[in-house]
Amino acid sequence: MSDHSHPASEPDVCTRRSSTGHLVIIGGNEDRVHEKRVLRRFIELTCVSDPKIVVLTAASSFHEEVSAIYDRAFGELGVTHRKALAIHSREDANHPAMVEEILSADGVFMTGGDQRRLLAMVGGTHTYNAMHRAFTERGTCIAGTSAGASAMSAHMIAEGQGDIHPEKGVVSFAAGLGFLQRAVVDQHFSERRRLGRLMAVVAQNPTLLGIGIDEDTALVVERGSGFEVVGDGAVTLVDGRQMSSNFLDIGERELIELINVRLHLLPAGASYVHRAGACSDAQVCRELTPTLHEIVDILSSNETVS
Amino acid sequence: MSDHSHPASEPDVCTRRSSTGHLVIIGGNEDRVHEKRVLRRFIELTCVSDPKIVVLTAASSFHEEVSAIYDRAFGELGVTHRKALAIHSREDANHPAMVEEILSADGVFMTGGDQRRLLAMVGGTHTYNAMHRAFTERGTCIAGTSAGASAMSAHMIAEGQGDIHPEKGVVSFAAGLGFLQRAVVDQHFSERRRLGRLMAVVAQNPTLLGIGIDEDTALVVERGSGFEVVGDGAVTLVDGRQMSSNFLDIGERELIELINVRLHLLPAGASYVHRAGACSDAQVCRELTPTLHEIVDILSSNETVS
Repeated sequence: MSDHSHPASEPDVCTRRSSTGHLVIIGGNEDRVHEKRVLRRFIELTCVSDPKIVVLTAASSFHEEVSAIYDRAFGELGVTHRKALAIHSREDANHPAMVEEILSADGVFMTGGDQRRLLAMVGGTHTYNAMHRAFTERGTCIAGTSAGASAMSAHMIAEGQGDIHPEKGVVSFAAGLGFLQRAVVDQHFSERRRLGRLMAVVAQNPTLLGIGIDEDTALVVERGSGFEVVGDGAVTLVDGRQMSSNFLDIGERELIELINVRLHLLPAGASYVHRAGACSDAQVCRELTPTLHEIVDILSSNETVS
Repeated sequence: MSDHSHPASEPDVCTRRSSTGHLVIIGGNEDRVHEKRVLRRFIELTCVSDPKIVVLTAASSFHEEVSAIYDRAFGELGVTHRKALAIHSREDANHPAMVEEILSADGVFMTGGDQRRLLAMVGGTHTYNAMHRAFTERGTCIAGTSAGASAMSAHMIAEGQGDIHPEKGVVSFAAGLGFLQRAVVDQHFSERRRLGRLMAVVAQNPTLLGIGIDEDTALVVERGSGFEVVGDGAVTLVDGRQMSSNFLDIGERELIELINVRLHLLPAGASYVHRAGACSDAQVCRELTPTLHEIVDILSSNETVS
């Protein structure tokens, strides 16, 4: 971590900051041109005044185009130390230079594209290990948008139709990056009407918390201490632990009966923290109720569910 | 009630039948041409072999056109005693001939249109009283589709935008017909993406069970004994009794934070009854769990919530 003081604008979050960094999980299509609330928050959460940001475009087949967009956006936000990492192969992802870039960064940003591509390139490589080391040992802020958001969870939605209703067998999974062990992330959530798909995921995997993130919206996880929702839309949480379903009794593509799904809808603009005093002015602060406390525990867990 | 024996095809429901009739609450756009599963079930639930069906078109400004559609559909289903009632004013609705038609019917079917128009015509009239008497004293089956479904509840959605997310102040209410006292019905539910709107309703009225019914789908209420879902889609139930929200703290059109909404999704094809033995072959039968038992109680309640 660079030897910078905390910026004056956000003393609280950076004071609260634990040894692990923040996760900034973005539902895609975040504003990169105007107010850039989500990207701005990512920069703030590096908790240094002149952060080094690296952009991972590995999810995308268009490294030049995508990196240019974020180079401009982060430049406009005053980031002088910024670099896009071109990973076109697993060899690239295993190169010591990549590891060095990751380990010297204050923030790592994963772009959109295809989460399967991202994992095929990066999964299990030295870059992958370096990201986890940076996050857990150095407190590096890890952000991902769209495919980069899906890749955050250990159990990753690889692909799946987003039908109106939850249907059996429409979603396929793959191993993600594992920054969230007991949750599964879906993005472009309200815009692509993916509640049915996420409920199908939870019906099949009731131990996983379903996280649906809208476009231009981020769920920020402060591991062990709280979370916040930033941007323009909302985050939908689908908790199936008390649910009963007929998942095992029905055939492929049949509608799933679900009883007792718990659903939380968290609009952008609020922080959910242990003590409401420890919160910035820009956000509405909420003390953690028992329900929200459980969510913090789930988001913070390093335990993989079996 | 006509002196007919129960039809052989559906002995169970009619044996189970209590002194009050069934409610057949249809999400609109039910099949009137092909298999007509929902309309067929309505006819079966009159529990007589040669039922008299009256069609109330008062929600619609197009009595002739709408009544012709149902005349043909019910005719194709073998209903010989069928009549569309033309109510163009409250005077019509207070006419003794209307009361006689309602009280001699085995099934009353309310068409779509505008639920405000239906209530403006019928609310508090002799026709209204006759419908309640027929339902509670004679066991007449009461059906309504689209506007006719919305009108079923005591607290009726009068109008409201169906945005992606629940927003404060987007739904306006009016007094409905009151066949359901502790619930509120929304129709064309998945097709018009109305979960946000229904959650906004429940956020404002946590004592009401939100009922979202898809097109060509019906929630059939057997008061006191169970319910079933018929047709092609699903019924979504939104239970906000354990919910917390920031409804009181936010301004109009702001997104509502909702924590601990309980959601049930019930695909068509299942009956939820006290004893699974008492169920027809066409439906999958489910015994009532404590959660579903509560739902039956809510759907059966004659108590108005304050």
